[in-house]
Amino acid sequence: MPPATVSFLDLTQEEALYWLALRMTPGLGTRRAGQLIDIFRSPRAVLRASRSELEAAGLGAAVAQSLASGCAFEDAASQQEKLAEAGGTLVPVTDSRYPPLLRDIYDPPPLLFVRGRIELLETLMIAVVGTRRPTPYGLTAASRLSRDLAVAGLTIVSGMARGIDTAAHRAALEAGGDTIAVFGCGIDQVYPAENRKLAEEIASRGVVISEFPMGAPPYPQNFPVRNRIISGMSAGVLVVEGSEYSGSAITAKLAAEQNREVFAVPGNITQKTSWGPNLLIKQGAKLVQEWNDVVVELKPEVRRRLVDQCRNKLKIGDLDSSESSAESSASVQGGPMHGAAQAVLRVLQPDSPTALDYLVEAVEGSSPSEIIAILFELELAGVVRQLPGKNFIKVWAD
Amino acid sequence: MPPATVSFLDLTQEEALYWLALRMTPGLGTRRAGQLIDIFRSPRAVLRASRSELEAAGLGAAVAQSLASGCAFEDAASQQEKLAEAGGTLVPVTDSRYPPLLRDIYDPPPLLFVRGRIELLETLMIAVVGTRRPTPYGLTAASRLSRDLAVAGLTIVSGMARGIDTAAHRAALEAGGDTIAVFGCGIDQVYPAENRKLAEEIASRGVVISEFPMGAPPYPQNFPVRNRIISGMSAGVLVVEGSEYSGSAITAKLAAEQNREVFAVPGNITQKTSWGPNLLIKQGAKLVQEWNDVVVELKPEVRRRLVDQCRNKLKIGDLDSSESSAESSASVQGGPMHGAAQAVLRVLQPDSPTALDYLVEAVEGSSPSEIIAILFELELAGVVRQLPGKNFIKVWAD
Repeated sequence: MPPATVSFLDLTQEEALYWLALRMTPGLGTRRAGQLIDIFRSPRAVLRASRSELEAAGLGAAVAQSLASGCAFEDAASQQEKLAEAGGTLVPVTDSRYPPLLRDIYDPPPLLFVRGRIELLETLMIAVVGTRRPTPYGLTAASRLSRDLAVAGLTIVSGMARGIDTAAHRAALEAGGDTIAVFGCGIDQVYPAENRKLAEEIASRGVVISEFPMGAPPYPQNFPVRNRIISGMSAGVLVVEGSEYSGSAITAKLAAEQNREVFAVPGNITQKTSWGPNLLIKQGAKLVQEWNDVVVELKPEVRRRLVDQCRNKLKIGDLDSSESSAESSASVQGGPMHGAAQAVLRVLQPDSPTALDYLVEAVEGSSPSEIIAILFELELAGVVRQLPGKNFIKVWAD
Repeated sequence: MPPATVSFLDLTQEEALYWLALRMTPGLGTRRAGQLIDIFRSPRAVLRASRSELEAAGLGAAVAQSLASGCAFEDAASQQEKLAEAGGTLVPVTDSRYPPLLRDIYDPPPLLFVRGRIELLETLMIAVVGTRRPTPYGLTAASRLSRDLAVAGLTIVSGMARGIDTAAHRAALEAGGDTIAVFGCGIDQVYPAENRKLAEEIASRGVVISEFPMGAPPYPQNFPVRNRIISGMSAGVLVVEGSEYSGSAITAKLAAEQNREVFAVPGNITQKTSWGPNLLIKQGAKLVQEWNDVVVELKPEVRRRLVDQCRNKLKIGDLDSSESSAESSASVQGGPMHGAAQAVLRVLQPDSPTALDYLVEAVEGSSPSEIIAILFELELAGVVRQLPGKNFIKVWAD
């Protein structure tokens, strides 16, 4: 079936009302709503259709009546009000800003409720998920990998749950990277309550999304449904810690069904929280020791996009906003990538590893984040290899 | 080329002397010695051949002269004396008791120096190797897995080095299982010195082997050579801890080249000693959380042999020599495997896990090792599944 017309403009008030009315119609499921959009091309057309037209499209009598009666408009109006109060926006599946990979899953949500930087929905995403009761090791691994992946240019997607999710979001923000929180409740709700500040920060520096209407409470049954969005938006799902039967195991299963890469961080076999990731690896998930283990599994065009992104950031000198403007302008003028990459390669040895800290000191005129980005490019190009403990070697001698 | 005649008898004094003379001939390498045996059918024939016959068989002039001159017989006589003093035996590649898998590698040692239970050389072996500087986690993992694999009927092969090797041998012995130490020096030497007592114990309850002559010191260059025997004898190699460039990484590489299964125990990515095993898993090694992860990868006929072995042990009641004779005879009379297996299945639930300790208490009249063996059989049969922390569930409800 051809997709409905795609637009990149914000909805008009009236269009928004129709989308919301469709969303609020009792008994109308995600799949069915998506099919109606495909058939009638717009929610307005669906809601203006007669009962018999709707029944001809395969709807049951009760739902057809609900739709045709327009009874959902009252709820829709109230939703619109709440959305405005929360400073939120609607991104329907027909919007060009809708997450591209999410559009391809079996049951994409027809309508997303969004707060924050909508443009992030079009970026390359990697989901980082795990247990709500992590060990210190799990928190360290989640933070380190999320930070490195964010610096490499991937947007970190998670569910803002306690534990691993929270660590992943925070690490991305702290690295100046991008992050998306997918809620299992309305975007005007906060769950868990202790994450109120984090939710606000994500809504301002990242983006918060949900398929659940404004005011929807965090019902337990929402979370598995929500998890399909986390994996569906992302190129892959990285599971950090979790038991064999955890929510993250479910997300990993969904990811595999959606044909997404599944990644897992191994852990000691004596540690219960590592049982899930270790089991996933046994079942075929990719073992992740460091960020590049994720990146190498991405499609070549995706990797190229990351490198370009990285290069652009460096050229305009805004990778690290804490850089002095003098340094930034020097970078712009001198063609920094080339010069600094040469300097990095001069310091690196082919036989003995060089520590990142040492590199940062030895290469003058480049900020730590520039050095990291350069190492990232060189590693992707196969010229440099990372060893344990943030050490680097040159792959070939000069 | 057809193999030379295979015999299962101990060598005569004279035959032994010829094998030793072949071994002690300067400049004659392993591959070349093996080829000569294939061509001339016995070391006696090799050593009685003329220089021109030897050169026609492809030997260089110098080695042909060494052989034909019989200059190695003095060393051979001295070797024979030392072998007798140490209570050792020779097992040449033509002996039916020679490790079957070892015979198939590219460069099998033509002659093994052996102390202990020669019959173990024909058993099913799994190598357990790792770093000489393990963490407490590595020691725990090595001990637990070696114990469980030994109880399951596999012979634990290792190199008696400090650390993981030592833990593997000890755990096998403590579980009443079988173990083989492959030395990188003569079997009358001990390296490291602190393992003198362990070496004696292995020589009496297991077996010690080497391809190096009596008195050969533990030269560093011997160890990689020795490692090919460890992997070559074994159905697979399990790497517990080690850095990226460790000896165990080399053993794993040899194992892969020899078409053996490579297994690795994952560990925290923040732990340097787990870098090697994690990397091996990335490269295709099987991740091992518990003993059965090794067993399921073995060939079906090997698994059947393990089950039969296990069943036989139980029937004659000698699995655990500390059992009271009353229990043993009760087991023999009652057809224990069937009765006890039924009892185990009565206690197990399909939905909630049962701890091993609980099972041992709940199933009367069976020793812990019987229960473990029964669980092993039921697990292989697919009726029972093990969960983290030695918990078990029934796979199907009744």
